[in-house]
Amino acid sequence: MRNFKIALAQFSPLVGDIQQNAENMLQQAHQAAEKGANIIVFPELALIGYPPEDLLLRPSLTGRIEQGLKHLAQAKNILIVVGYVHVDEEGKRYNAAALLHNGLIIGRYHKQNLPNYSVFDEQRYFEIGHQYLIFEHQGHKFGVLICEDIWVEKNTKQLKSLGAETILVLNASPYEASKPQQRQQLVSKLAAENDLRIVYVNQVGGQDDLIFDGASTVINQNGDVAARAKLTESDLLIVDFDAEKKQYLQQKFEPALDTIPEIYQLLVMAVRDYVNNSGFPGVVLGLSGGIDSALTLAIAVDALGADRVQAVMMPYTYTAQMSVEDAAEQAQRLGITFGIAEINPIVNGFMQTLYPFFGDSPMDTTEENLQARSRGTLLMALSNKFGNLVLATGNKSELAVGYCTLYGDMVGGFAPLKDVYKTIVFELAKHRNSIAKTPVIPERVITRPPSAELRPDQKDQDSLPAYDVLDSILYMYIEEDLSQDSIVGKGFDADVVSKVIKLVDRNEYKRRQGAIGPRISSRAFGRERRYPIVNGWKAGV
Amino acid sequence: MRNFKIALAQFSPLVGDIQQNAENMLQQAHQAAEKGANIIVFPELALIGYPPEDLLLRPSLTGRIEQGLKHLAQAKNILIVVGYVHVDEEGKRYNAAALLHNGLIIGRYHKQNLPNYSVFDEQRYFEIGHQYLIFEHQGHKFGVLICEDIWVEKNTKQLKSLGAETILVLNASPYEASKPQQRQQLVSKLAAENDLRIVYVNQVGGQDDLIFDGASTVINQNGDVAARAKLTESDLLIVDFDAEKKQYLQQKFEPALDTIPEIYQLLVMAVRDYVNNSGFPGVVLGLSGGIDSALTLAIAVDALGADRVQAVMMPYTYTAQMSVEDAAEQAQRLGITFGIAEINPIVNGFMQTLYPFFGDSPMDTTEENLQARSRGTLLMALSNKFGNLVLATGNKSELAVGYCTLYGDMVGGFAPLKDVYKTIVFELAKHRNSIAKTPVIPERVITRPPSAELRPDQKDQDSLPAYDVLDSILYMYIEEDLSQDSIVGKGFDADVVSKVIKLVDRNEYKRRQGAIGPRISSRAFGRERRYPIVNGWKAGV
Repeated sequence: MRNFKIALAQFSPLVGDIQQNAENMLQQAHQAAEKGANIIVFPELALIGYPPEDLLLRPSLTGRIEQGLKHLAQAKNILIVVGYVHVDEEGKRYNAAALLHNGLIIGRYHKQNLPNYSVFDEQRYFEIGHQYLIFEHQGHKFGVLICEDIWVEKNTKQLKSLGAETILVLNASPYEASKPQQRQQLVSKLAAENDLRIVYVNQVGGQDDLIFDGASTVINQNGDVAARAKLTESDLLIVDFDAEKKQYLQQKFEPALDTIPEIYQLLVMAVRDYVNNSGFPGVVLGLSGGIDSALTLAIAVDALGADRVQAVMMPYTYTAQMSVEDAAEQAQRLGITFGIAEINPIVNGFMQTLYPFFGDSPMDTTEENLQARSRGTLLMALSNKFGNLVLATGNKSELAVGYCTLYGDMVGGFAPLKDVYKTIVFELAKHRNSIAKTPVIPERVITRPPSAELRPDQKDQDSLPAYDVLDSILYMYIEEDLSQDSIVGKGFDADVVSKVIKLVDRNEYKRRQGAIGPRISSRAFGRERRYPIVNGWKAGV
Repeated sequence: MRNFKIALAQFSPLVGDIQQNAENMLQQAHQAAEKGANIIVFPELALIGYPPEDLLLRPSLTGRIEQGLKHLAQAKNILIVVGYVHVDEEGKRYNAAALLHNGLIIGRYHKQNLPNYSVFDEQRYFEIGHQYLIFEHQGHKFGVLICEDIWVEKNTKQLKSLGAETILVLNASPYEASKPQQRQQLVSKLAAENDLRIVYVNQVGGQDDLIFDGASTVINQNGDVAARAKLTESDLLIVDFDAEKKQYLQQKFEPALDTIPEIYQLLVMAVRDYVNNSGFPGVVLGLSGGIDSALTLAIAVDALGADRVQAVMMPYTYTAQMSVEDAAEQAQRLGITFGIAEINPIVNGFMQTLYPFFGDSPMDTTEENLQARSRGTLLMALSNKFGNLVLATGNKSELAVGYCTLYGDMVGGFAPLKDVYKTIVFELAKHRNSIAKTPVIPERVITRPPSAELRPDQKDQDSLPAYDVLDSILYMYIEEDLSQDSIVGKGFDADVVSKVIKLVDRNEYKRRQGAIGPRISSRAFGRERRYPIVNGWKAGV
């Protein structure tokens, strides 16, 4: 056994851009080799990016992959372990790892455990692998696993029994709150139980609704963390193996964040990557004086810088003066482009055109929705004219119960708070204020009772239970799949629970047309929660 | 072997409503027994309806299923073969068939081939079955298969070798153009090759974007069709088996339709079921004087009756007088509720509010989109006030290239033409006119050049290639997954092909927020074509 250096190439591939990803990886391999690394490990499917979805069905995939691998294999004096799609002679696809050395593929591994639950559809695309891979380099025996494989204990045991001293795990493990801690506990436990080392390399960055936190880790055989890469950023982490001590040498690393700061940082990354990878110059959003848009604005500014963010306050008759003041105040504190656009002429135009149809029928949610939709259309007009992406500002609690207007406040290409419950919105806002000398969100925005301001003196709590109660019920129903009876059994009012569940069930059609947004929970609306719109399931039992 | 009667219970379960579906099936079993049927066969997963999606993950599923089966098992004097979800002692779920007789489950089959491609996610939910089921009734040996199983030839051969004389196939086979013919060819071939009979029972009706055509069939051992149930409607088909002739007795049935009339009928069913199963009193749509809205209106009236359909013409400065006349003419021919709503005051309101932002910047698509979004908001206001569902009128060609306005003409809860290319829209319109004494769509709507009328003298063909060229390219790129080079190789202009493909790729974000609509192709946008929004794949090779 000799001393060696291993490089963990935590980076953010652009899904589908095989050529650019290969070039990016080649540069990293050069850099790692220059720094004396003997091995470099890239994340799962790094060549095409995760998740590639139906791009995997395109017939030109095989040729592109071959070219990309060939390009990457040019790297000299370093062994490369890279995640890619292997298409065999029969056209079968595998979620694979290749060992590249001096221009040749010298080894290959096929992922054995293909997740097909939650956000994952891997059995739609890939065949199951049936063989382990062990290889020796620098007198050290390495085993290879890919993501889900490491969560199945027998794989680690099997590699140990085959002689592995270090397991290299290639991952594209989507973030959810407290997942980084869970992952680290798992790999530490596996390392200690099996008396081996684990090098865990994760993708980083946002890809549509999925976000990858990074936090790649090297674990020694006692279960201790020897090194950890950055959260939310690309990081080429190079770690020394000491042959005498038989372990990876300890490096300094930042301690893990608490959940709220961690979520905040991930949301910032999500906005940054969605906007930049889609090629937008910046974003525009409606600032209402409420907490959701205030938090969204803070995230956007942290992600893109004030000069790439435009906000507009769109008051109507029912908008409180306090709301306009608070919106303007926040815009000024953050130094963004800010404007005010009265919607009265627009709403009046709609009412005039609709009069022959409506006559003197009483006002109802129709008129409230007209205000929201006038605002949505204004934001889209600003987006169309100046090219900025509209950020939708709705939160998970609202989307769950449909307390939002389709084509109104739901307008937007990306919804940063889509998977964030209202109670967490408050915590995130307080957190953001706590880390600045001058709080960026005016205190009153956080303390005043939430209101949609779509009719006189409206408060959210006129229509909905208090947010702590609502969010508890929603969490049990959505994240934990509990039935109505079980939730009532935990001490919640039966009528309230029944009403909330009915609202969740009935509003699937709205959510289906909503913007995507970063997943931070263990059950996000979207690809993770696939419910029929026409649905006769009745809550109760 | 004795004579017997077999009932094919082709019906439309409501997804999720296990109790109602069980009661519905119990009534059908009673009815079949009264008519002397010895066996009744229901479709795949009939107890919960297909596809149940993530309702399958709810913990109360098992109890509901047990209650439903128990309810259905009350039927006396008839053997029931029913599709349901079997949850075993370990909590594993199977896509299963149960044999029920006099209150008892006397047999069970687990589907062996679980589709996890195209629109199917069955491996997300179900374990694979490993055993065949053969049972004897009335001195006749029956084998059981479920949907995808019949497409794998070895299953039929295996059942034959186990002695099966008739195979009962329980299906929820989603429609696509020419699928009914393919299915019948397949089962005829399998019956003839294996010298056995096939009873193919299919679900019927619309469920979100999936539509089921029915057309359940009984095939004799020579491959001939003995009986066939109705297209697009529930049908309790009872067929005699003659023990002496050793075959099912021939019944009269309607010949299969040609593709265009078949698609038309399926679209009518899709609208009928979506609207009725969602509990809407009726529909409202924008009638522009163009062919898409004209066809959508005809479908809506055929699905729901004129008294449940409201249309509104929303002219602006650029709307031709001819368009208003044609819209009014069609409304009058069909006898629907019709109104005209000028959008000028609304668009002016927007322009006034936006002037401080836009100044005197030149007009561009921003202003065009304002018109479309004013119309979308008006339709939603009518929907909110009167409770009718908005039908979106866009077609597949538009949605593919993004020639449509998000939150504008894309507004709606259901999009009947979502999976219908423009060239097929024309054929469907001509077909609908051909079957009425007075054509319901004014001739001029079909013959004039398509225009969005969002700027003076605009024609679709100013921005897009001719629709026959566009649709050919789209079909090759979307349905056939051909690369840009391959399409150019078939004789299409390289610049045109490149432009079209770029548009398809770039407009995924619009489609993601669009309404669902009935799938009639072999590659519909939506759950069948899962593309990333942020996507670095470049066409070319």
